[in-house]
Amino acid sequence: MPPFEPPVRHLMGPGPSDVPARIRQAMAAPTIGHLDPEFQGFMESLKAGLRALFQTENRMTFALSAPATAAMESCLANLLEPGETAVICRNGAFGGRLADMARRLGARVVTVDDDWGMAPDPQKVEEALRAHPEARVLAFVHAETSTGARADAASLCRLAHEHDCLSIVDTVTSLGGIEVAVDAWGADAVYSGSQKCLSCPPGLAPVTFSARAVERVRARRVPVASWFHDLSLIAAYWDGEGGRSYHHTAPVNALYGLAEAVAMLREEGLEAAWARHRMLHERLIAGLAALDLEPLVAAGARLPQLNTVRVPEGIDEAAVRRHLLQRFRLEIGAGLGPLAGRIWRIGLMGAAACPENVVLCLSALEDALAAQQYRGASGAAVAAALAVEVRA
Amino acid sequence: MPPFEPPVRHLMGPGPSDVPARIRQAMAAPTIGHLDPEFQGFMESLKAGLRALFQTENRMTFALSAPATAAMESCLANLLEPGETAVICRNGAFGGRLADMARRLGARVVTVDDDWGMAPDPQKVEEALRAHPEARVLAFVHAETSTGARADAASLCRLAHEHDCLSIVDTVTSLGGIEVAVDAWGADAVYSGSQKCLSCPPGLAPVTFSARAVERVRARRVPVASWFHDLSLIAAYWDGEGGRSYHHTAPVNALYGLAEAVAMLREEGLEAAWARHRMLHERLIAGLAALDLEPLVAAGARLPQLNTVRVPEGIDEAAVRRHLLQRFRLEIGAGLGPLAGRIWRIGLMGAAACPENVVLCLSALEDALAAQQYRGASGAAVAAALAVEVRA
Repeated sequence: MPPFEPPVRHLMGPGPSDVPARIRQAMAAPTIGHLDPEFQGFMESLKAGLRALFQTENRMTFALSAPATAAMESCLANLLEPGETAVICRNGAFGGRLADMARRLGARVVTVDDDWGMAPDPQKVEEALRAHPEARVLAFVHAETSTGARADAASLCRLAHEHDCLSIVDTVTSLGGIEVAVDAWGADAVYSGSQKCLSCPPGLAPVTFSARAVERVRARRVPVASWFHDLSLIAAYWDGEGGRSYHHTAPVNALYGLAEAVAMLREEGLEAAWARHRMLHERLIAGLAALDLEPLVAAGARLPQLNTVRVPEGIDEAAVRRHLLQRFRLEIGAGLGPLAGRIWRIGLMGAAACPENVVLCLSALEDALAAQQYRGASGAAVAAALAVEVRA
Repeated sequence: MPPFEPPVRHLMGPGPSDVPARIRQAMAAPTIGHLDPEFQGFMESLKAGLRALFQTENRMTFALSAPATAAMESCLANLLEPGETAVICRNGAFGGRLADMARRLGARVVTVDDDWGMAPDPQKVEEALRAHPEARVLAFVHAETSTGARADAASLCRLAHEHDCLSIVDTVTSLGGIEVAVDAWGADAVYSGSQKCLSCPPGLAPVTFSARAVERVRARRVPVASWFHDLSLIAAYWDGEGGRSYHHTAPVNALYGLAEAVAMLREEGLEAAWARHRMLHERLIAGLAALDLEPLVAAGARLPQLNTVRVPEGIDEAAVRRHLLQRFRLEIGAGLGPLAGRIWRIGLMGAAACPENVVLCLSALEDALAAQQYRGASGAAVAAALAVEVRA
């Protein structure tokens, strides 16, 4: 097995996104013990940093030692008991995954379905909550990575509370790229991932739980089916009064990297980071329009960090992605599920949300499309993008 | 949040163990996409390397994207359906954890209890299997990290098959330190951790499943309660025919590190690594004997990589560990559960299994014990250890 030398890549897919050298080097620092007294201080700083990202005072805020997919399952497993009802918004792959997971955990699942590419419809959610007064949880995806649609998280969380439900919010692709306001929304269990707008390698999932959510876990009749995910056990490590006790061995070096990412976002400023994502998105959209490529999502619901465009008729979408990868070392994403073969997903996430990447992506797309005799490839995309002013 | 500079540490606890710079630097290589065509080749190499470590031909061999604790749960969740019976050997904290997890998953658990510090008694296991012909799984810990006792894995796996059970074997602390022979044992679901004798940072769990185990998962009546752990879904990513499809975003950089660890073990040779652990263990035990410190585990069942000694009467064990950490930057482990305050756990794992660490640990222990007027601290420990010959 010869040592693996990763090829050069520009990561503009749905994640992972480009990881700055500063974060990768932080991960290469010497490993210390997960119960080391000095690591406890580090953990407290990291928790404070994550609270700032989530805009929350939630005490129970930490990084789960697994990818965001596991955090999704963790939130459901902690807040739902077998036989309880969950209302779940399903407007893309990740809403569908929430529903699948909740069913496997023994919950009764009521889905509120919207087309892939649409935001969840708050009116339909309200109807579902009214029709199911027994519902205990409302779960939805803030930034649907499979479609690029943004949910109205504030309204959905408010509806949850009006109907005496806890809210579970997937902020995997939103955290760090657009505003996530856990306390202002009144969200109860919120999870994210390290590899999107936080610019870390994949593998960790920041999570935060409201006092109400923690109380719900404490009051359970049946223990959480997963020992690994049981919040009341994890608390002994991440939230021990006067010390830490062993639960599992935390991924020390990955946590170094996450802390560095949090520090970089703090240096830039959260609002500056959101503005950067928004402005570069406007550039990209202007360039895509010049290429006559149609966005999947309506203007009001578009995510700046995850741009979806329809594949024009007659174009071989996989050949375009191969062209980008082979000629420009550029990764963009394919469609999932019903959108497979029908859209591209272009990420502008974290450190990858930079002016160079917008220009590279548009140039490369234009080149790939021209190779398939696409009529919209008229050489105007980059200029159209650069005509959109980006303030530093 | 100032950047965290980890303090210098020598990691001789129950894990994590010292991580060589070569492995940490491998983790700092640029991140690429988890579905990148070049990453697929890397994954195949890693799977081949893990098969060699586990001494297996099992096709379904990969690294689970979470710590070993999650892998323990994954094996139980895949192989057990609600209401099925599992016989579980409980001779330490991790056997107890297996039983807790299996109960939460809805299994009927029959424990075979042995004192902490003893190996599981095959005769008692056989009696339990005979008394429970409905049992579907036998689970046990090969290297009990909480006590330092080694199970007779070959005999226990054979008993499992004689009674038509699948075997689940915890090799978290054994893999790379002593022989793990999955195919020769006929073990069915075997998991380990990155942070013990493989010398990686914590966070990943190598796993391997026999064809019988994969078949059992395929034939389930009830889906695995955990979507994240369902082997039939994970297979689409780690074992896709003619390509990979998305399941979750794999921890790309952590996997770089694991591949480097596998390469280093291959360079040294598995048998040479086992011999190194054994010889340094003999040195350490000779030094501990000169300090009049009594091993917890009988000679035949001792793990070379995890050495447990009883705290002498009148000695403040926590003060000894503080002394080691403050004066020598040396971490050793405390006892868990009924052994809390009664033993120390001294790891000689992976890269930390080196002659320098044996000398450091004995010198430091002697110094710390002398500070408490311990009569056995006569200055003879290091010489006694060095009298044991270690062949290169």
